[in-house]
Amino acid sequence: MCGIFGIENSDLASYFTYLGLYALQHRGQESAGIASWDGKLVHVERGMGEISEIFSESFVKNLEGFRAIGHTRYSTAGVSSLRNAQPIAVNTSLGPLAIVHNGNIVNATFLREQLEKEGSIFQTTSDTEVILHLVAKFSRDGSILKALYNALLKVKGAYSLLLIAQDSLIAAKDPWGFRPLVMGKIEDAICFASENCAFDLIGAEFIRELKPGEIVVVQGDNVQSFFLPSASVSTPCLFELVYFSRPDSTVFGEDVAARRIEMGKLLAKEAPVDADIVSPVPDSGLFAALGFAQQSGIPFSYALIRNHYVGRTFIQPTGKIRDFRVKVKLNPVKSVIKDRRLVLVDDSIVRGTTSRKLIRMLREAGAKEVHFRVSSPPTKWPCCYGIDTPTKEELIAANKSIEEIRNFLEVDSLAYLSLDALLSTVNNKTFCTACWNGDYPVTIPKSYRRSPRLFPIKTEEDI
Amino acid sequence: MCGIFGIENSDLASYFTYLGLYALQHRGQESAGIASWDGKLVHVERGMGEISEIFSESFVKNLEGFRAIGHTRYSTAGVSSLRNAQPIAVNTSLGPLAIVHNGNIVNATFLREQLEKEGSIFQTTSDTEVILHLVAKFSRDGSILKALYNALLKVKGAYSLLLIAQDSLIAAKDPWGFRPLVMGKIEDAICFASENCAFDLIGAEFIRELKPGEIVVVQGDNVQSFFLPSASVSTPCLFELVYFSRPDSTVFGEDVAARRIEMGKLLAKEAPVDADIVSPVPDSGLFAALGFAQQSGIPFSYALIRNHYVGRTFIQPTGKIRDFRVKVKLNPVKSVIKDRRLVLVDDSIVRGTTSRKLIRMLREAGAKEVHFRVSSPPTKWPCCYGIDTPTKEELIAANKSIEEIRNFLEVDSLAYLSLDALLSTVNNKTFCTACWNGDYPVTIPKSYRRSPRLFPIKTEEDI
Amino acid sequence: MCGIFGIENSDLASYFTYLGLYALQHRGQESAGIASWDGKLVHVERGMGEISEIFSESFVKNLEGFRAIGHTRYSTAGVSSLRNAQPIAVNTSLGPLAIVHNGNIVNATFLREQLEKEGSIFQTTSDTEVILHLVAKFSRDGSILKALYNALLKVKGAYSLLLIAQDSLIAAKDPWGFRPLVMGKIEDAICFASENCAFDLIGAEFIRELKPGEIVVVQGDNVQSFFLPSASVSTPCLFELVYFSRPDSTVFGEDVAARRIEMGKLLAKEAPVDADIVSPVPDSGLFAALGFAQQSGIPFSYALIRNHYVGRTFIQPTGKIRDFRVKVKLNPVKSVIKDRRLVLVDDSIVRGTTSRKLIRMLREAGAKEVHFRVSSPPTKWPCCYGIDTPTKEELIAANKSIEEIRNFLEVDSLAYLSLDALLSTVNNKTFCTACWNGDYPVTIPKSYRRSPRLFPIKTEEDI
Amino acid sequence: MCGIFGIENSDLASYFTYLGLYALQHRGQESAGIASWDGKLVHVERGMGEISEIFSESFVKNLEGFRAIGHTRYSTAGVSSLRNAQPIAVNTSLGPLAIVHNGNIVNATFLREQLEKEGSIFQTTSDTEVILHLVAKFSRDGSILKALYNALLKVKGAYSLLLIAQDSLIAAKDPWGFRPLVMGKIEDAICFASENCAFDLIGAEFIRELKPGEIVVVQGDNVQSFFLPSASVSTPCLFELVYFSRPDSTVFGEDVAARRIEMGKLLAKEAPVDADIVSPVPDSGLFAALGFAQQSGIPFSYALIRNHYVGRTFIQPTGKIRDFRVKVKLNPVKSVIKDRRLVLVDDSIVRGTTSRKLIRMLREAGAKEVHFRVSSPPTKWPCCYGIDTPTKEELIAANKSIEEIRNFLEVDSLAYLSLDALLSTVNNKTFCTACWNGDYPVTIPKSYRRSPRLFPIKTEEDI
Repeated sequence: MCGIFGIENSDLASYFTYLGLYALQHRGQESAGIASWDGKLVHVERGMGEISEIFSESFVKNLEGFRAIGHTRYSTAGVSSLRNAQPIAVNTSLGPLAIVHNGNIVNATFLREQLEKEGSIFQTTSDTEVILHLVAKFSRDGSILKALYNALLKVKGAYSLLLIAQDSLIAAKDPWGFRPLVMGKIEDAICFASENCAFDLIGAEFIRELKPGEIVVVQGDNVQSFFLPSASVSTPCLFELVYFSRPDSTVFGEDVAARRIEMGKLLAKEAPVDADIVSPVPDSGLFAALGFAQQSGIPFSYALIRNHYVGRTFIQPTGKIRDFRVKVKLNPVKSVIKDRRLVLVDDSIVRGTTSRKLIRMLREAGAKEVHFRVSSPPTKWPCCYGIDTPTKEELIAANKSIEEIRNFLEVDSLAYLSLDALLSTVNNKTFCTACWNGDYPVTIPKSYRRSPRLFPIKTEEDI
Repeated sequence: MCGIFGIENSDLASYFTYLGLYALQHRGQESAGIASWDGKLVHVERGMGEISEIFSESFVKNLEGFRAIGHTRYSTAGVSSLRNAQPIAVNTSLGPLAIVHNGNIVNATFLREQLEKEGSIFQTTSDTEVILHLVAKFSRDGSILKALYNALLKVKGAYSLLLIAQDSLIAAKDPWGFRPLVMGKIEDAICFASENCAFDLIGAEFIRELKPGEIVVVQGDNVQSFFLPSASVSTPCLFELVYFSRPDSTVFGEDVAARRIEMGKLLAKEAPVDADIVSPVPDSGLFAALGFAQQSGIPFSYALIRNHYVGRTFIQPTGKIRDFRVKVKLNPVKSVIKDRRLVLVDDSIVRGTTSRKLIRMLREAGAKEVHFRVSSPPTKWPCCYGIDTPTKEELIAANKSIEEIRNFLEVDSLAYLSLDALLSTVNNKTFCTACWNGDYPVTIPKSYRRSPRLFPIKTEEDI
Repeated sequence: MCGIFGIENSDLASYFTYLGLYALQHRGQESAGIASWDGKLVHVERGMGEISEIFSESFVKNLEGFRAIGHTRYSTAGVSSLRNAQPIAVNTSLGPLAIVHNGNIVNATFLREQLEKEGSIFQTTSDTEVILHLVAKFSRDGSILKALYNALLKVKGAYSLLLIAQDSLIAAKDPWGFRPLVMGKIEDAICFASENCAFDLIGAEFIRELKPGEIVVVQGDNVQSFFLPSASVSTPCLFELVYFSRPDSTVFGEDVAARRIEMGKLLAKEAPVDADIVSPVPDSGLFAALGFAQQSGIPFSYALIRNHYVGRTFIQPTGKIRDFRVKVKLNPVKSVIKDRRLVLVDDSIVRGTTSRKLIRMLREAGAKEVHFRVSSPPTKWPCCYGIDTPTKEELIAANKSIEEIRNFLEVDSLAYLSLDALLSTVNNKTFCTACWNGDYPVTIPKSYRRSPRLFPIKTEEDI
Repeated sequence: MCGIFGIENSDLASYFTYLGLYALQHRGQESAGIASWDGKLVHVERGMGEISEIFSESFVKNLEGFRAIGHTRYSTAGVSSLRNAQPIAVNTSLGPLAIVHNGNIVNATFLREQLEKEGSIFQTTSDTEVILHLVAKFSRDGSILKALYNALLKVKGAYSLLLIAQDSLIAAKDPWGFRPLVMGKIEDAICFASENCAFDLIGAEFIRELKPGEIVVVQGDNVQSFFLPSASVSTPCLFELVYFSRPDSTVFGEDVAARRIEMGKLLAKEAPVDADIVSPVPDSGLFAALGFAQQSGIPFSYALIRNHYVGRTFIQPTGKIRDFRVKVKLNPVKSVIKDRRLVLVDDSIVRGTTSRKLIRMLREAGAKEVHFRVSSPPTKWPCCYGIDTPTKEELIAANKSIEEIRNFLEVDSLAYLSLDALLSTVNNKTFCTACWNGDYPVTIPKSYRRSPRLFPIKTEEDI
């Protein structure tokens, strides 16, 4: 889970990248970094934490140049360290390169082991470094475009990536088109972002979504497209629309807020309930809850409100306070809850443990009934293409029936949106739905099962 | 604008204080601090920024002891510095003292000038230090309770304060009862907080609100009350219910969320409008908007969504991006707005400049009509009792008619809730309403007009 | 043990102060600070550690103004904290004041207790704050000079101090003249320093030593002198010449290096010995050892060399390495020591424990004989005037005969320079010699025996 | 110019390494780092600055394991950055490796360009990384010893290196034996250091110097030696004895202090002079000056004393203070200098500019005559094997006759020690003397002239 941004041909390149990342923090706020190119040098700044903590004015100023890329990241592997933060910048015989990457390479372990056997030295555990090593290997092909093209032919899985080379900014999307990547324009500059909400903040104009397998090379205001051999069918990630993308973005050509309201309406049709109040689990269930309220005519309100000052460094108490981690994020609003029959709407249920705590809080605050509604089908399969889901063993819907889940959550009723209804909300019908039905568009090789070797080096940077 | 928390007789005193402040950050997140007493030493930690940035686990551990007080602060005077952060801890002939204070002393300048003439040395510009110097002056009276009582007799204005002395924790509220201060209990410990949402987080039981003029002395589990001469009438701040307190708190005996929903309903009755969507200005207008939607039957939705990762240290661009400061906090949701007639609800209008920017954003996103509704009367007078309002010159409603404001905001219609309707939502009818009608319960002395002398010392702490 | 520096009427005031402190670090390198006055504001920067660690270029730049004072300090009381670091800056009815102070006020506890009874609030445990409170008390006298004069009349003991007031820089020395304080000139600026080695570094011209009881008021290039009632006899500290001052300084009119060489020569005359090598304990015994070698004709060499990179933050091992603290500072040079008869020269013996460890190191490195020579008399009495000596119980010469000390040190012979010989090296014969013969020039009041109350407040600044 | 330390089989491995580096700081104090191996993970801590600034107790504690290596470094290339700090730790197909290196690889540029052509990615500009890449390339040979052996066969130049592998600690010295590397023992642990003064501090026993071309593999208490093909003759660096090593070390079997005293004596014989005082330039000329004084009978004293608190971060004044950089390190002692004829002794003259400033300081302090004596021959050639000397253009003796240098320095007489006399002080007669006579034992390839490409990436670590 990452957000990326890049820009070419702007004298505010690193500043716009900083703002672009700022708007993409819902995609990951554990570490961030920016690299810029000033015609001679690649400058890199990276850090752990939220954008506003990492980047001071002087940091952004130091990132000189007219070309920049940035990355904001939620650690998928649990190894949260600066060492694995992006951008990664290296030197090759084609000159310096810097890269950012959103996605997941499913044959990374296999490629890495091969490269190490041939004498390559790895400094990180990330699959992104594998791409760089492949580019270096193919650097004898003479141009960065050729080297990247040949490197990407070796790579299987999900990637939307941006690359700074000496003479250009390059954007690329895998042939299946798993992750979003959009192109925009501000003054004479071309920019790229995971979602167009980043363009709104800086005032850039949205041009178009990149096509699956497309490689875009930008040099000044010159833009050229190249294509990798196409996959049999493009399979963008439907979960981006259900949960991951921001409601004010347009992703894969779909308006996110409108699609979520539609999901909520269909959910109210498929699983109606007699109740006094519809409330979201803030903020993930918000727009689906609005749709549910509109369709059902049940008043919308907030049974739970969110604490806006949740910092990452919060100190965990030693078991003294029950359900602490939930309490610190959400608090019940008693006057809304007391003696009411509630419909609680969320986008999905992963392990079910947090949901159960929330429902208990509602009961303690006096809820008469609690009906849980989920705006997507049961999540039964882990994602291998860049969304951070737990293993099958931990996914509650992979191991329990809906009635068993209802019992576990201690709710009066429970219903999920059907996959057919969900797909009816979107125009393209070839979305990746692997997390719900296990149909993985790209085969997962055996080497993927070998859990990525933990890089056995811990440095001063691993905070 | 501050939040305070204190606790006596707990082996987790500083830890609970840390959590209590955490829940009170909506009352100020510019600086924070905690002082604890371990029977021998007062320990103090203070810092600039949000609680989670200031306090690491080791900081909280270092704050040893069974008695603690804490403070989270929004700078009212524009002088934002660690020097003025609270708690303030000093040594007197009655032993060490530490104090936190929410409110505003209107005769502080007069008292300070008198004290300096007698040889007192001031280290800060805060009115809180004036209280400490008065306590030190009266220390010859032999007990901390007598010294504090006599000091408070000299002081005019709003204060809810907590004080660590060698042998007790003391809580006090001014005779007018301007600011909230509640008492609770957790295990064998007595605790105090600006609002009871702090008790919810730590699992403490709410006991009662302090009475106006009450001084509570807690020693172990022994609680004693004393009273300052009472004011002719108690005048708690009604703006706490309209805006400042958290919706999940009970303040001055009133349930905040319920009162705000009621305000929204009365607003819909007093100023109905034909429209497609009711949207709040997030989050200040949220509960009034819910009430407006429920009363009017117009669907509730979000025309604007909030960016959850707004950091204080955000770099201001150099005029490149129009309406940047608003954009970075709120973004329009186009599919909700386009071709719709909107009712936008907020709690108040101060200068009107931010509201105007938001309304322009809605127009640009395609809103057909925008009707602005405000859940309190026009704000015409500055607060002298602890809410940070600008001068009369800057308050738009002090200088323009409602029609002129409507023009300024560029809305199709504008309406405020009447003061009578507002007062009808609460049980107590003697609330302070000075910001709306200029009836100041405590006379403002001339010395108050002399702006508090800027303390002419700048130290390493003034970051 | 402190060093102070001040300058008036220079556009590089804080920069010269920074350099002045740099040259005075042998007088204390535990904390340091600078205050400057720009005509409107007092700026203060303080920190723990060596000058070069505390002051960055930007820190010095921020200390704007044409008047500055600085302080470098070795904590005498064992309470090492930023809270007690100097300068102390406060606001009084005479305007802002900042002060630095070298010395020790013997009636500080008495004065402090009196002031607290009258309602004064103390923020530090330092005797320097007592002077400030007295000045504030006398501020009704109408001028800073009068207030300071009257304050100093109350104060007993050793002080050389510098004070920034709104309209002048003031320097003062106690009537006994215990601690050095010299005046110099650079361009149009007047400057003051503990020792003239600070003038050498910045290229200032030495004017003269301040007289005992002198108060010098400097405003621009105007210099005026005032005098406190004189003491019966002036008694500068002779230990400054034996050990504390830098060899390249001229202190109390005496050339330090020349006096120390003379002490070594007299020591060689009073206590000759047949040996192969004369070696100092670096660096305290250096010049006396040179004198001893010159007088005796025995070759000078280094049996011990000093490690130049001793940092304060060095991690103490857990008993694993014998005599670690000595080893990390000094290492034996085997080829100089082996099979030789050594004369080891130092300036004094305090507890004797370090000397014993050094002598053992020499024995282990193969020394045939070790003869210890001390260039001052046995230290039998603690200093009450600003030198950090331990209590009488810990001073080895207060509790053991010379033969017992020789046994303790495990040396072949031991001799001290006689007091008569020591006094014969200097022109003035009224030096304070209390540490050797107990003749204290200023009576030590009973309140001094009450150890200074530990200030019972520990803050974030106490690192 | 670097110092290295390593230890195997100690539960205090990183702590002893920390102390070892501490004792080796005269070999470089610009950056330092330690890597440790705990059986599973390599831990690395690196930083800019002196050891005591970089390593806190918690840092050393975090460096878990029984095997550790450390490095302290003076940047030779002027590019001072954390990126180039050592140890370097990477992952290879033989598992994790960490390396530290003292010396200079003369064919590093050639090797690096070859490796990059084959697809290797470089993260630093250091020649040390070249060794690691070669080891990775040869990793298919199956063992770390074989891979290292084959890698070192490719490498030309000076290296003393230590390497952590999964199963052993490896030490290696180049076939010419340019740089010192000694082996010791403490309890059950084997340790290595650049100089044995590191062993003195931790109480380790000196075993022996490594032989040229020796590779020592240590696993637990098992020690095995292997040898690279030997060079025709071993050529240790004689300048280590003249200047670089610490006087209390034994280097290449020679006692450093004794050799330097001998050099001073021979210098007094070769170039006697009638004078009043012999003074060193502290501290580089110290032992030679002692020898000169002993031989000549002229009294030894200090005409210049050293300021012990020179911090790296010192702020450079803007031309205001003449000869500032010299003044801040050394100050003249007037009473020693005035009206005296001085012999000033130093180990070498590089550019001559600093020496000239010192001599001017002596003249200004009243010296009657100044005779300069140098305890080595004129430095005419740059070092290519790890000592940081400037280019031939900047070396004064490469461009001026001795009489011209005397004129430049403004001294009454000038003499250097002859190379024959210098060689007569040591037992081995095959030392490298290239800096004096240009006889380079290892040919310098053309690629060396291409200045090492500046790595065109600047990161957050380059502070």
